[in-house]
Amino acid sequence: MIRTAAYATTAATEPLGPFTIERREPGPHDVLIEILFCGVCHSDLHQARGEWGNSIYPMVPGHEIVGRVRQVGAAVARWKVGDRVGVGCFVDSCRRCSACEEGVEQYCAEGMTLTYNGLERDGVTLAQGGYSSQITVNEDYVLRVPETIPIERAAPLLCAGITCYSPLRYYGLKAGDSLAVVGLGGLGHMAVKLGAAMGAAVTVLSHSAKKEADARRLGARDFIVTDAPEVFDAHAGRFDFILDTASASHDYNAYLKLLRRDGTMVLVGAPEPTPLAAMSLIFPRKRLAGSLIGGIRETQEMLDFCAAHEIAADVEVIKIEAINEAYERMLRSDVRYRFVIDMASLGPASAAL
Amino acid sequence: MIRTAAYATTAATEPLGPFTIERREPGPHDVLIEILFCGVCHSDLHQARGEWGNSIYPMVPGHEIVGRVRQVGAAVARWKVGDRVGVGCFVDSCRRCSACEEGVEQYCAEGMTLTYNGLERDGVTLAQGGYSSQITVNEDYVLRVPETIPIERAAPLLCAGITCYSPLRYYGLKAGDSLAVVGLGGLGHMAVKLGAAMGAAVTVLSHSAKKEADARRLGARDFIVTDAPEVFDAHAGRFDFILDTASASHDYNAYLKLLRRDGTMVLVGAPEPTPLAAMSLIFPRKRLAGSLIGGIRETQEMLDFCAAHEIAADVEVIKIEAINEAYERMLRSDVRYRFVIDMASLGPASAAL
Repeated sequence: MIRTAAYATTAATEPLGPFTIERREPGPHDVLIEILFCGVCHSDLHQARGEWGNSIYPMVPGHEIVGRVRQVGAAVARWKVGDRVGVGCFVDSCRRCSACEEGVEQYCAEGMTLTYNGLERDGVTLAQGGYSSQITVNEDYVLRVPETIPIERAAPLLCAGITCYSPLRYYGLKAGDSLAVVGLGGLGHMAVKLGAAMGAAVTVLSHSAKKEADARRLGARDFIVTDAPEVFDAHAGRFDFILDTASASHDYNAYLKLLRRDGTMVLVGAPEPTPLAAMSLIFPRKRLAGSLIGGIRETQEMLDFCAAHEIAADVEVIKIEAINEAYERMLRSDVRYRFVIDMASLGPASAAL
Repeated sequence: MIRTAAYATTAATEPLGPFTIERREPGPHDVLIEILFCGVCHSDLHQARGEWGNSIYPMVPGHEIVGRVRQVGAAVARWKVGDRVGVGCFVDSCRRCSACEEGVEQYCAEGMTLTYNGLERDGVTLAQGGYSSQITVNEDYVLRVPETIPIERAAPLLCAGITCYSPLRYYGLKAGDSLAVVGLGGLGHMAVKLGAAMGAAVTVLSHSAKKEADARRLGARDFIVTDAPEVFDAHAGRFDFILDTASASHDYNAYLKLLRRDGTMVLVGAPEPTPLAAMSLIFPRKRLAGSLIGGIRETQEMLDFCAAHEIAADVEVIKIEAINEAYERMLRSDVRYRFVIDMASLGPASAAL
């Protein structure tokens, strides 16, 4: 086993602090990656603090991992030492079900193997995430990070980026479409960039006027402050597509009003349930849909798309010791638009490297 | 004007009773239809009793109209006296908006002209429905009812039939798909017949076991009694498509659980709003959609489909004087599956005919 420096929390009420974990020696099909940066997703905070009721401790969060290949297993042909790679929200899946066969491993019938806060496929080893100096991952679940993307700005693509890219593609956003992005946070700011690069006319819908300049800088052509019910009437039927990234409860019926006939609104955030009126979907005909991250193939496609369109996340790089403060700032939406941990701040990767 | 025998209600609290209305003399593009039968839709009851808050009195309900052409305007080439025809939920629309141009007049930007409980396009004449002996309708909003469909059983196709046919087509039900129909009433029984004729394996979901034999007779291969939460776990992920015809409140999240990944659930009933959890659509990826009746072109397609597949509604024919009792029986779901009024019971059509 490979001793590895990390940051972990040992209980829902504890802050994160220095911790040592063990990574497996790379098997024939494994890749050992030195983690250079790891993005901080809001779900890290939820899980570290046990807010979803499914937390396993000790927990090393982090599923927006970028780094360099340090070692490859004997049977690995696709990766070589020095390759610039990424790891997202999952590190394995059953590989046999229809979802895996179709390349949407995130919907694996047996359940994807989460990068952290779950068990590896052996059913006993606790998977530990990217707030650490290195990680051993099966070669099939590693992504290539194009060299042209600034690496610290690539990290959030592995979760925030693909979470927005996949529904825009799957539900058929077309060039020239009018796209509304609800919420301008870690996800929303990627949705604006990706939607604009796909040729959509992007409008940001936000509770507050404060982010308008940012929205326009990111690529939005318009900005609507959703501070009054009349706003939804004034813009009724305007959008072909709504990507709803908000994680605080809001009235879906009001937002559905903004869709044109046969438009699609996709939820990628998961607020508390709120009442839905069938008539919001019936008159006129509309659809409400969901989407969860993306599969390996599509995540690679997204990374290549970002490279081709010179897209990367807007980040604030922090040292690992600032992680607890960063969580507090995330709760106040005080980040534009993603914290990314510089893993050099964790000290030497490990005795083994 | 043409004096016409009808049944109307004059207030939300009044029963329906004999009433006389006037129909316009057919203009160059109009068709005068002798109404032979008219289906009784649950929305007739809602509107007659003012339950939607938009009722205009006196009101002659009825939008499942079948009959024979009695007179045609000078410019009408498509219809001739004696043709077997139908009229559905609307009798006109703006004809200029994108919805009208695409043949989905039910979503007309200016609002379709409802067959009753609305104003005609002149903005002053109160439109009156099919509980009457005759009706004058613009030729473009008249449907051809194939001679092979028993005429009293054709009436409910004009609303119940198209309401189910349109979403199955628009949202892409395929032969071999597993289709669940929620609720076995006027709409649901048509959904079973249409879905089976389209080659789907149909399952009926019902609160009560009482309708199982009927469901199977109508074409369902399976029947699930949704009387316990465990039922939804036992059948999780089973269906490609759910057509939800229920008009009483129910938990959409439970039904969405029954959909496979990338499946579609379509709402055609409009219960009170109930809480929707985003996660019901996100994991795995699914969509929830709505649909409202169908356009003229598609309604004709549906009638021809029914003729080709020997499909018609299961009806109980009543005399017009039984309409108030029929409403009470509908409230108890005591009808299999649609009341249809025999307009001969209204007496001679009018002095003019």
